[in-house]
Amino acid sequence: MAAEPTRADKFSFGLWTVGWEARDPFGDATRAPLDAVEAVHKLSELGAYGITFHDDDLIPFGSDNPARDHHISRFRKALDETGLVVPMVTTNLFTHPIFKDGGFTSNDRDVRRFALRKVLRNVDLAAELGAKTFVMWGGREGSEYDVAKDIRAALDRYREAVNLLSQYVLDKGYDIRFAIEPKPNEPRGDILLPTVGHALAFINELEHPELVGLNPETGHEQMAGLNYAHGIAQALWAGKLFHLDLNGQRGIKYDQDLVFGHGDLMNSFALVDLLEFGGPEGAPAYQGPRHFDYKPSRTENFDGVWASAAANMRTYLLLKERAAAFRADPEVQEALAASKVGELSTPTVAEGETYADLIADRSAFEDLDVAEVSARGFGFVRLNQLAVEHLLGAR
Amino acid sequence: MAAEPTRADKFSFGLWTVGWEARDPFGDATRAPLDAVEAVHKLSELGAYGITFHDDDLIPFGSDNPARDHHISRFRKALDETGLVVPMVTTNLFTHPIFKDGGFTSNDRDVRRFALRKVLRNVDLAAELGAKTFVMWGGREGSEYDVAKDIRAALDRYREAVNLLSQYVLDKGYDIRFAIEPKPNEPRGDILLPTVGHALAFINELEHPELVGLNPETGHEQMAGLNYAHGIAQALWAGKLFHLDLNGQRGIKYDQDLVFGHGDLMNSFALVDLLEFGGPEGAPAYQGPRHFDYKPSRTENFDGVWASAAANMRTYLLLKERAAAFRADPEVQEALAASKVGELSTPTVAEGETYADLIADRSAFEDLDVAEVSARGFGFVRLNQLAVEHLLGAR
Amino acid sequence: MAAEPTRADKFSFGLWTVGWEARDPFGDATRAPLDAVEAVHKLSELGAYGITFHDDDLIPFGSDNPARDHHISRFRKALDETGLVVPMVTTNLFTHPIFKDGGFTSNDRDVRRFALRKVLRNVDLAAELGAKTFVMWGGREGSEYDVAKDIRAALDRYREAVNLLSQYVLDKGYDIRFAIEPKPNEPRGDILLPTVGHALAFINELEHPELVGLNPETGHEQMAGLNYAHGIAQALWAGKLFHLDLNGQRGIKYDQDLVFGHGDLMNSFALVDLLEFGGPEGAPAYQGPRHFDYKPSRTENFDGVWASAAANMRTYLLLKERAAAFRADPEVQEALAASKVGELSTPTVAEGETYADLIADRSAFEDLDVAEVSARGFGFVRLNQLAVEHLLGAR
Amino acid sequence: MAAEPTRADKFSFGLWTVGWEARDPFGDATRAPLDAVEAVHKLSELGAYGITFHDDDLIPFGSDNPARDHHISRFRKALDETGLVVPMVTTNLFTHPIFKDGGFTSNDRDVRRFALRKVLRNVDLAAELGAKTFVMWGGREGSEYDVAKDIRAALDRYREAVNLLSQYVLDKGYDIRFAIEPKPNEPRGDILLPTVGHALAFINELEHPELVGLNPETGHEQMAGLNYAHGIAQALWAGKLFHLDLNGQRGIKYDQDLVFGHGDLMNSFALVDLLEFGGPEGAPAYQGPRHFDYKPSRTENFDGVWASAAANMRTYLLLKERAAAFRADPEVQEALAASKVGELSTPTVAEGETYADLIADRSAFEDLDVAEVSARGFGFVRLNQLAVEHLLGAR
Repeated sequence: MAAEPTRADKFSFGLWTVGWEARDPFGDATRAPLDAVEAVHKLSELGAYGITFHDDDLIPFGSDNPARDHHISRFRKALDETGLVVPMVTTNLFTHPIFKDGGFTSNDRDVRRFALRKVLRNVDLAAELGAKTFVMWGGREGSEYDVAKDIRAALDRYREAVNLLSQYVLDKGYDIRFAIEPKPNEPRGDILLPTVGHALAFINELEHPELVGLNPETGHEQMAGLNYAHGIAQALWAGKLFHLDLNGQRGIKYDQDLVFGHGDLMNSFALVDLLEFGGPEGAPAYQGPRHFDYKPSRTENFDGVWASAAANMRTYLLLKERAAAFRADPEVQEALAASKVGELSTPTVAEGETYADLIADRSAFEDLDVAEVSARGFGFVRLNQLAVEHLLGAR
Repeated sequence: MAAEPTRADKFSFGLWTVGWEARDPFGDATRAPLDAVEAVHKLSELGAYGITFHDDDLIPFGSDNPARDHHISRFRKALDETGLVVPMVTTNLFTHPIFKDGGFTSNDRDVRRFALRKVLRNVDLAAELGAKTFVMWGGREGSEYDVAKDIRAALDRYREAVNLLSQYVLDKGYDIRFAIEPKPNEPRGDILLPTVGHALAFINELEHPELVGLNPETGHEQMAGLNYAHGIAQALWAGKLFHLDLNGQRGIKYDQDLVFGHGDLMNSFALVDLLEFGGPEGAPAYQGPRHFDYKPSRTENFDGVWASAAANMRTYLLLKERAAAFRADPEVQEALAASKVGELSTPTVAEGETYADLIADRSAFEDLDVAEVSARGFGFVRLNQLAVEHLLGAR
Repeated sequence: MAAEPTRADKFSFGLWTVGWEARDPFGDATRAPLDAVEAVHKLSELGAYGITFHDDDLIPFGSDNPARDHHISRFRKALDETGLVVPMVTTNLFTHPIFKDGGFTSNDRDVRRFALRKVLRNVDLAAELGAKTFVMWGGREGSEYDVAKDIRAALDRYREAVNLLSQYVLDKGYDIRFAIEPKPNEPRGDILLPTVGHALAFINELEHPELVGLNPETGHEQMAGLNYAHGIAQALWAGKLFHLDLNGQRGIKYDQDLVFGHGDLMNSFALVDLLEFGGPEGAPAYQGPRHFDYKPSRTENFDGVWASAAANMRTYLLLKERAAAFRADPEVQEALAASKVGELSTPTVAEGETYADLIADRSAFEDLDVAEVSARGFGFVRLNQLAVEHLLGAR
Repeated sequence: MAAEPTRADKFSFGLWTVGWEARDPFGDATRAPLDAVEAVHKLSELGAYGITFHDDDLIPFGSDNPARDHHISRFRKALDETGLVVPMVTTNLFTHPIFKDGGFTSNDRDVRRFALRKVLRNVDLAAELGAKTFVMWGGREGSEYDVAKDIRAALDRYREAVNLLSQYVLDKGYDIRFAIEPKPNEPRGDILLPTVGHALAFINELEHPELVGLNPETGHEQMAGLNYAHGIAQALWAGKLFHLDLNGQRGIKYDQDLVFGHGDLMNSFALVDLLEFGGPEGAPAYQGPRHFDYKPSRTENFDGVWASAAANMRTYLLLKERAAAFRADPEVQEALAASKVGELSTPTVAEGETYADLIADRSAFEDLDVAEVSARGFGFVRLNQLAVEHLLGAR
């Protein structure tokens, strides 16, 4: 039996997840709005440690200042009562019609200026609530038609926006870092910064790249047919895994936002193994929140909402158990060695060896027994089968 | 009628393209080997200006030095006779069984050292033939099973290899730059550096990033459902479009390598428009070879091979004509303005304006007529329809 | 220049297309509701001959009878004023929360009975308005979770529903046929009858298969990576192309519902060629409405809505022109012959020949010059290039 | 611990699976040919009960009669020694260059006649070896270019071929049924009969539909993004699941042919549950061979080949255990009832009830409490989480 979730597990949820009213492109809402205060209390009971939100989740778009203050103060009270923290805040630049061609990269400059103002205001709120990460999902930054968007100009504007926000945070002395969330498409035909890679590349063009990292989402990478665990590994490799969004997706199709593990279970196992045991000496490779960005299916009532929230955490903990057992199994260790998985950490060129030395090493090329090396089997299928059996709890 | 291809068009072909024997995962070769000398002469007649190759295309794997020299000298003679140039050379680290788990990132260190030696030797040949670009397609660098490959270690080794090669080129004084070619999958389940974005991000971690750029291939990006013209635009934006591989792909499936334009024709139009007229004042945005990396379909004999080679160039030139007419059409210019495509090049924050000024600008937020701005139509569909009609030669 | 659309072209539009308020999974409506009467008048002006609707498009869900009658009578008046016809009617079993697990195949029998009643009522309306086709898109008939739906029981219930409706239509003497519209996913994770093939197979299990055919949609087949023109051809082959939904889709992703031709243009060309000239002696292969089921992009105001409606028809007519020229081109005819496209219509076994005769024919096997036959080139790439050039208006 | 495989489990393998030399589109063979006799002995030792083959797997294309007889007699001897059976035989109409445009539907009539002869001869061999199923995978029946193939003519020729073969089997009195194996693409751009649905629909157009069923392959359906368990369910529903090919695929990409369960593990669980417990009273829904059509990864030597063969069977048996436990769990039974999974087997219209009765039943429509019904939650997420936990061996 997996342990029950505790605060130490650092599970967090978006307010918009359990609060999703289940409106989809072909259907009306099937659930009533969920009060933010209730969400805080319920998630706390279930074992979460944090809650996150878009500005408009908490404070309806267009609220005046007293209304805004009221919403915030009720929410803070609930946080205080429960001890839940707000590790991350984000801004909604996609729901309101004004953002129909994007926020930071709308062709319409009035919209871009409005978007910047909306985000600046929300960065203040994030700082006020103690959030350390400010996520930016540019879901509307993109196009359906190749001739309708100058991509290089759009990237210029995107950079301009992030540079300005970075300077703002620096000047204010906020302890906040930004995390960009890539997505390939939906709701736009093609979204800018479609994958982990494109967003990492973008960050390198910024004035303050140290302030900006990633918030990769399981389903978003998988919607491009990409391996989520690989993407997370490259983000870690670049020192840019600032936050992450866990959920489930069943292949290349519309964004499903299923419960974590209800999509590609094998890849979820690899991911949890990486996050929890991928650091030096088997320490966690990532220390931040385990944040779920999923949608309780439209078929569910509130019982189903809370069951689904619990399911995310429970599956994560079960996978952590399975990964721990996998790592501890001597047969697995032997199989990993046979597959030379660890040998990949040995530099190809020895310490102090130069390319001239390598060229002079006849054993590396001229005298190498190519046929013998080629005939070596890697044993990858056996190793993967061991993983499958651990995942199935069969070892 | 489109003009016939000339050397000034800078069309080049891989020797492996017209020389493909048409062996596929379910079928034996349907064509005989093509002599490299014949390929040079035939491509020259068709109007190409360049030919490219993998070492093993020209010199069979395992050839001894005399055989090697013979192959090279025959090839050089053909180049001299025709005036064809070799703008790019690349190394095959994927066909021979020794590379079954990759070259630079094989779990087996013996393989990695062998791979480096193979590439070093081929870099010398590239320099000797005057190639300015050395392409690296790491098609076997990847995995099928998440537990069988330590992705961060693999990226370390990849970086180690590229750093070593860069140092070699610098020390030798070669006028060569490297271009990484991304691909998401096939022949591996998941390939490292799967997209333009991932490769750009990788380059930023190198010792000599200025020496390394990209060689994006149409079909490879489209196999991940990504917009090729968008990817090329981001590569240009990052100053990293060193070379490119043009071909055709019909959606997310196995790598088809069709003739350029025989896949997504609209996106090909957008691409040619970008390459040819996307620079300042409508100048070309890219000056390098227009390189075709396609496969003449397995159903074709050599007549079909040469017809398909010609088809690549002809379609490119037709699309260039269509794009020129599109740009020159006053109705298109009016539609672009109505869609505010150019307005995206105006900075969001005016020259000299600070974020404080922006925050103080009530017209940007507090006093903005949100309803009015939201109701503005962008006219994107009309603009795209104008593009379709130009593409169809109907305007 | 393509001719302007006329009634003879039989272009029709769903009321829900031009009337789409542009609400999507991540965004609120960007356009106001469109009055059905205005839609009728506007589409008539643009050259359409027909309009179609879901019950709830015309009559809001839950309207009482007087309201219902009022909506219908206003609509009929507009039809009378314009001469527009209603060739097809359909029922909405997907928007209201009651249908969150489907209509005919909801696990909840109360829902199934309600759904049948809703459809029966709407069939009466269809008959009253003279519609000859009643489309059934079962977009909610499906599941996200494999354990939550008994697929065989669901198919039983689907069949039960269609059988009952068929009997009703027969008994009433209505001149109506049903057309099932397949879709692979969205809004459900997996939808029942996901492709043209699955729906055709289902029809064969019905009591009155002669009453039931297909309404295949461009984007729906392409969302499964399938070739829409191939699907239409198989539907025609089976005598089941009762109606069709034309639009545009750019690959395997969420349902885009772009303008016809704004997706895969080459496949749209092949489709129009098939529909218009694929019958005996080059007659149309399909006589029914050319129905557009698209969504004007969310970025557009009403000017864009009407421009996009016109674009569908104009692109169709341009493609029809291009296909006619393609067919008439002697070089194309020669290329078709060289590719043996027509030879496929010759039976493999001659008239009167038995398998015994074939086995006795040594020229077919024992004495066949396998090498010679294998070496024949099909010339497909050249033929396709001719198609591309006709499509581009370059011949 | 899962039981070891026994003959009673009816596991079978293609000779081409363990015998795959690991040549792929970008790489040469990494393994030596495997002698068929060795394959028989090894599979027998591992617990398989059957072996299957394409003619060319056993008898190289173009063998003369003495060579042919020699190959067959050695193979029969091995079968006799081990007790292995040959439940299925199939013909290769895709490897040899002569089939580059297909076998039954090549545009070239000479090829079509040759193909028929090749299959007829192989049907005799199938009968001789006692095979009950003759699989037809038409992997080359298709096209890359829409203008190059008349799809309706191709379906005519396909039907002609299957009709002729059916008549042959009937006349000969063979106890053989045909099973069509669908695939959407690869090696052709678009393959005819791309999915389970299309093949089922095709069968309905045959002269002897009772003789023809399906052989659906896991990865082939998943390459179109379709749910394999759903496809199998529809095939069972139509009485057409004659045989099946189990393997693993990780999403929409090239055909991976991984070990069963090394792809989408959740869907594999649902599939095994359906096959083993989906019949009346929880009996198996399918009685035929559990046939694995996979490829041992190219990275493996023969140790890896046999480990991978064993892995297929072991994963199947583990999933069978998990499914049995899932079905037996009272909490699952309660959750299934709460989700009304069984209620879907209750006819929507009661026995003896007519549509007139339904229309007269005000409780079904006029008086239904729509709000109450709409608010009911289905509990699907909880149910799926129970499945995940059983799959993980955590309950």
